[in-house]
Amino acid sequence: MALVVQKYGGSSLGTVEKIQEVARKVLSRQRSGDDVVVVASAMQGETDRLIGLAVGITDVPELREYDSMISTGEQVSTALLAIAVQAQGGKARSLLAHQIPIRTDCAFKDARIEEIGTERIRSLLDQGYVIFVAGFQGADCDGNVTTLGRGGSDTTAVAVAAALKADVCEIYSDVDGIYTTDPRVEERARRLDKVSYEEVLEMSSLGAKVLQIRAVEMAMKHNVPVLCLSTFGPPTGTLVTKGDKEMEQIVVSGVALDRNECKITICRVPDRPGVAAAIFHPLSEANISVDMIIQNVSEAGYTDISFTVRKEDLARAKKISARTAKELRSDRIVTDDKISKVSVVGLGMRSHAGVAAKMFNTLAAGNINIQMISTSEIKVSCVVDQKFGELAVRLLHEAFGLDKPPEISRAAGKKRAAKSKK
Amino acid sequence: MALVVQKYGGSSLGTVEKIQEVARKVLSRQRSGDDVVVVASAMQGETDRLIGLAVGITDVPELREYDSMISTGEQVSTALLAIAVQAQGGKARSLLAHQIPIRTDCAFKDARIEEIGTERIRSLLDQGYVIFVAGFQGADCDGNVTTLGRGGSDTTAVAVAAALKADVCEIYSDVDGIYTTDPRVEERARRLDKVSYEEVLEMSSLGAKVLQIRAVEMAMKHNVPVLCLSTFGPPTGTLVTKGDKEMEQIVVSGVALDRNECKITICRVPDRPGVAAAIFHPLSEANISVDMIIQNVSEAGYTDISFTVRKEDLARAKKISARTAKELRSDRIVTDDKISKVSVVGLGMRSHAGVAAKMFNTLAAGNINIQMISTSEIKVSCVVDQKFGELAVRLLHEAFGLDKPPEISRAAGKKRAAKSKK
Repeated sequence: MALVVQKYGGSSLGTVEKIQEVARKVLSRQRSGDDVVVVASAMQGETDRLIGLAVGITDVPELREYDSMISTGEQVSTALLAIAVQAQGGKARSLLAHQIPIRTDCAFKDARIEEIGTERIRSLLDQGYVIFVAGFQGADCDGNVTTLGRGGSDTTAVAVAAALKADVCEIYSDVDGIYTTDPRVEERARRLDKVSYEEVLEMSSLGAKVLQIRAVEMAMKHNVPVLCLSTFGPPTGTLVTKGDKEMEQIVVSGVALDRNECKITICRVPDRPGVAAAIFHPLSEANISVDMIIQNVSEAGYTDISFTVRKEDLARAKKISARTAKELRSDRIVTDDKISKVSVVGLGMRSHAGVAAKMFNTLAAGNINIQMISTSEIKVSCVVDQKFGELAVRLLHEAFGLDKPPEISRAAGKKRAAKSKK
Repeated sequence: MALVVQKYGGSSLGTVEKIQEVARKVLSRQRSGDDVVVVASAMQGETDRLIGLAVGITDVPELREYDSMISTGEQVSTALLAIAVQAQGGKARSLLAHQIPIRTDCAFKDARIEEIGTERIRSLLDQGYVIFVAGFQGADCDGNVTTLGRGGSDTTAVAVAAALKADVCEIYSDVDGIYTTDPRVEERARRLDKVSYEEVLEMSSLGAKVLQIRAVEMAMKHNVPVLCLSTFGPPTGTLVTKGDKEMEQIVVSGVALDRNECKITICRVPDRPGVAAAIFHPLSEANISVDMIIQNVSEAGYTDISFTVRKEDLARAKKISARTAKELRSDRIVTDDKISKVSVVGLGMRSHAGVAAKMFNTLAAGNINIQMISTSEIKVSCVVDQKFGELAVRLLHEAFGLDKPPEISRAAGKKRAAKSKK
């Protein structure tokens, strides 16, 4: 008998019929002998409907009230799920954040979970109930409703799984797992059976959007195995877990494409201490998240500094940077929103040389010019012209043998490793 | 400076525009110097939408889950109202039942308020906030969400007003007050400036549906003056308050028509102790509410017993009564759903003789046969054939001078009183 935390996204709960089908799945899982706690998102479209109401009044709603309002979608879907299980002859109970409690700080709209009570859930599980927990919401120390940021139900699920020391956290959606790359870009993309937290983190931040980043961070911190699978498809998916020896034998796990960044270059700034701080401090103050930062080698005391920001932040970032450029007596600021970032990710890179070189060679063979490069322990990213982004993904996917099943790829990895030792 | 509790119904909150208009009204009231606490219903149609979702799953949803779900409409509307006030430059805060708290028993779907905390509301009022309280909902001692029955926001408003010892509880809706009778039946119906709790109770239970009965009972118990008025109309309405000398000089305040009852007669039952109990105990066990009960004089040890029930309960009541009739060896059970109940209501009746006689004379003059009669201290009700119901209302409205403004009517009352003393 296992303790399972499941999470169902809005697209799995779009209609009363889908809610009944999810209830059947959940109940049959419980009847097979497992304790089941389910975290539910709002029914598809509901959160957007609520946001629309608030935005009909003002673009800048006070966040406490906003949270109280947009958290109601999960209250409805969990109660409906409980009603559906009961109608099917099961015992079920829905719980809101303040009833558990899921205690957060009071950073409305983006609250952090501080503590989760387990007593009420455990007692209900002992009495044979299926528990439906309203995702996305929390309660601060004054009992105010908070929310965890868009997609926060993933975080709720992992946090509840961690608090209960569940055997697994299953994330159900309309996607059956995590792929070597976006199947819409490369049809030979292959579903990974197993992938490490670190790799998913690199893929998420690169736009793969498989799981909310905070949920993965929390799963990694508390070592919660997360299984991503399809709600209405077969029971196979991708297990996100701690990296192990076996996984490290696979050099590259995936290729990610991010079309949502753009590049700002401040030209000819003085090459002296404090310049980077002068540029990036005002951006951080404005809550603009900067991804890649490149500083070229200095030339006669001057240098160019390039960085990337999200497209939605470009206008503000440009305005702020122009002010800084003026202060630094830079002669020019250049922006480019026609770029794509292509990354290869893999735990195995840590111990395998030559991944970056192979990536650069592959792009060069495809006649794709590289504009910026950044690397981490398990990732190499290149910024290229937007029109070559998808081509770059397909070339790299093939070059790293990602379309082949893992056994072969692993063997190839071993061979490469053996070669590189020679 | 007064402390005012206002309540806005769903039709006053049907759109974002209406919510903004209500917010403007509330804010201008606060800026005129009053402390304002507002109880809000769900946006029009929302509660029905939610009920539809539950009913799409089962006709008998578990009530704890049902309450958790259908209470969300008020959570949305109060937050939107607070956002609207903030957008207009005011300070506002929405509060849910568990945050105040509004503590109830755990009779889901029909919970009773046990206690209301005032500390948080008072502290926010002192800081200059307008408070929006989610109507209709409560929290039981385990923190479960409860609801107070359909239309329960009236009850929330009066209970909050009582707890805060507010100067007045204003109930805003699309009706501008309480009328001498239904204006759709008698166009000369006149709005009452003032009416007693007792009279409204008699009118409510007779189907006038001006205010939820429980709200009126609570207002009477705690002596909360309730002003019923129109949200988007002029600021005049009907004050519901403790009966006073002046009000008692008006003999009859209104005429009520109830089309929703039907009559059951159990014929020839033994006229001995215990028979009434045998008939009505099983009905009460089945939660069927019986209104009028008439037992005719006995004849050779047998009698007929007639009573009225709501139309929706007729089928069940008939089945149960048939069983009882068999046990009592009655030879027949007769039902009639083509009846109307017409009632005249007035505090002044207590001390003025002849109201019943005048009513019977008026109906006789109109050639309307009376099938059943029941009386209370401030009400006389007659059951008549359904097709004469509206005619009876018009005749009585005229006979008791209800179309004339109260000054004249009061004078007439005095004259009648003087006459009856002769």
